[in-house]
Amino acid sequence: MLQLGVGLGSGMLTRAQELRTLGKPLSGYGERSPYVKAARTTRQSKTPEAGSSASPLAEQYGILTPSALHYERHHAGVPAIDPAQHTLLIHGLVNRPLVFSMADLKRLPSVSRIHFLECGGNSGSEWQPKTGVDVQRSYGLASCSEWTGVPLRTVLELVGLKPEAKWMIAEGADACRMQRSVPLGKELDDAMLAYGQNGEPLRPEQGFPLRLLTPGWEGNIQVKWLRRLHVTAEPYYVRDETSKYSDLMPDGKARVFTLMQEAKSVITFPSGGQRLPGAGRYEVTGLAWTGRGKITRVEVTFDGGQTWQNAPLDAPVLRKAFTRFRLPWVWNGKPAAIASRATDESGYVQPTREELIAVRGTNSGFHFNGIKVWNIGADGSVTHVEA
Amino acid sequence: MLQLGVGLGSGMLTRAQELRTLGKPLSGYGERSPYVKAARTTRQSKTPEAGSSASPLAEQYGILTPSALHYERHHAGVPAIDPAQHTLLIHGLVNRPLVFSMADLKRLPSVSRIHFLECGGNSGSEWQPKTGVDVQRSYGLASCSEWTGVPLRTVLELVGLKPEAKWMIAEGADACRMQRSVPLGKELDDAMLAYGQNGEPLRPEQGFPLRLLTPGWEGNIQVKWLRRLHVTAEPYYVRDETSKYSDLMPDGKARVFTLMQEAKSVITFPSGGQRLPGAGRYEVTGLAWTGRGKITRVEVTFDGGQTWQNAPLDAPVLRKAFTRFRLPWVWNGKPAAIASRATDESGYVQPTREELIAVRGTNSGFHFNGIKVWNIGADGSVTHVEA
Repeated sequence: MLQLGVGLGSGMLTRAQELRTLGKPLSGYGERSPYVKAARTTRQSKTPEAGSSASPLAEQYGILTPSALHYERHHAGVPAIDPAQHTLLIHGLVNRPLVFSMADLKRLPSVSRIHFLECGGNSGSEWQPKTGVDVQRSYGLASCSEWTGVPLRTVLELVGLKPEAKWMIAEGADACRMQRSVPLGKELDDAMLAYGQNGEPLRPEQGFPLRLLTPGWEGNIQVKWLRRLHVTAEPYYVRDETSKYSDLMPDGKARVFTLMQEAKSVITFPSGGQRLPGAGRYEVTGLAWTGRGKITRVEVTFDGGQTWQNAPLDAPVLRKAFTRFRLPWVWNGKPAAIASRATDESGYVQPTREELIAVRGTNSGFHFNGIKVWNIGADGSVTHVEA
Repeated sequence: MLQLGVGLGSGMLTRAQELRTLGKPLSGYGERSPYVKAARTTRQSKTPEAGSSASPLAEQYGILTPSALHYERHHAGVPAIDPAQHTLLIHGLVNRPLVFSMADLKRLPSVSRIHFLECGGNSGSEWQPKTGVDVQRSYGLASCSEWTGVPLRTVLELVGLKPEAKWMIAEGADACRMQRSVPLGKELDDAMLAYGQNGEPLRPEQGFPLRLLTPGWEGNIQVKWLRRLHVTAEPYYVRDETSKYSDLMPDGKARVFTLMQEAKSVITFPSGGQRLPGAGRYEVTGLAWTGRGKITRVEVTFDGGQTWQNAPLDAPVLRKAFTRFRLPWVWNGKPAAIASRATDESGYVQPTREELIAVRGTNSGFHFNGIKVWNIGADGSVTHVEA
């Protein structure tokens, strides 16, 4: 009598569920179940302080990345900062150079918003023929959190920008004094000095106690452990905006300050490394995001791009945030090539990998946002498609 | 030259920020900074498996409660459940009784939404003259998460309800076999069988691997570690819906199945136990929520309710979710009595404590949603106001 229909598997109530003993008592700060194992990728390295770890996006539900699993990108490790000692200096082309303590900043009007953060090098392996084998390794340098902080414009109004102020050099308190040149202007309207992440203080790996947040731009410019903003007329052309995080084009010239993260999407189920247990009902799902505002459409193909259908988006769709798409699917057990294609409110449509390479070549490891195809075999195995 | 204006304090760049050594390397699963200490309340108890712990709402940013700090309410402790062994049985007045494994449930179409969860006993101390001294102890049995799961209607369609089905008895797998009678009907349109919380699997304290989520209703009926739904024509009238979580009225009768959590709000800064360092600029902030849908207005008073002004709400305002309000305030250094008052889309306005007691008396410890006044002294101390 007890059996599951609609092509699903089945189970039975077992003795394992017949718990007769008291469980764990109340606790001050909870931990996840020991049965849950999702982790960021970490690699054996002689310099594990300078590298990156990727979020397990295929194991993420909804649009929020657990803070413990938010991707990392460090250049001198994660500093241990006492927030009571931390300060932010704003000086240079300003009328009133100021130093703010964390207590000062927390007295100013604040804002909370959900935004994605993506490394400019995310999906860098996709430029090459041997593409990432799973969604974590090929797309996992992107995460999404609720951020809380002071609007950048509020503190810039307090110091007063001089007319010749056009840039600010953001500097971190980590040992490498991470620096980036940030162009001042309208695109910083939603920028903030963030001290909160997912309801609690920033995690150390995301800049505790203070980071720059410039929603929609590449992660590298959103300087962590922020200790200084030097307002200038010109950029510094530091290492991380010239030799890195710039796009070397086929003609040998390089695009620099390509800060905006263009519309992008990826299917997280089914995705590389997974295996469908058999033909039948599934829910295809994935994530889409764009630095330009809201995602307006995600299309999904099951035949390698010959035909596309719209995938419903979870509501509400938020600006510059992960957007979850879901589409019911009955797999007939035959080979399939599945992919997603995002469109944003600016009208921008995510290109194919081939279209992207036709314009940008393959000299650069940065800013890849081409369509990602997953290949499903007759045995249910899901693999990346090599070019 | 370096000094802060606008009544703020000041700090200086110190040697403590001159880090010259590499920080921590990349890690698989991150931890919060050791400088961050927020914790749920836990009390010395001979039965710490049967009790509650409260979220530190005054230390929460934005609308999301970190999963590690989500309030707890257990009746037999937190069971350690292997999700591969866990099943959900649905039987009784159905056409096709079914058993679902967790893998079965995850193949069904899913949904993610941000919702508050509040214990029916939250703010129970506010019924008495000696009210809670801080926001955690008086309002902390409420939290807000992004939940992911299968719509309840999807599984009820699979089993097929018989015409006489009016209730379902939800049963947990904890040692006490926690049970509640759930009225079937239109109010369950947004109910789900939840397996995800804030991007990862449910935390053990919130029901890993599966819980019932009935947004807007009291937490107790949203049975955790859910293992059985028995569809019936009548409720069971179990202990937790008769002797507890019901409202004993002045005439000796009891209201039962008072499931809807009415509109409510509380100021989290400044709040009980905090101290303002001096006159000057502050941001007053707090949380509002309602089981009936969206919060449409929050008003704040600084003079004990003589005058009120609207506090801006963070956008987007979500249905049955925490809503953050913020209002800049210049404190003149004189005693003040501050409070917030929420209105929801049904037109319901949060009552004063006195209005609530006039109708419901003080026999019940449940479902308090009166206005909470904080008293600010000339020395900046913030205390609860006793009736």
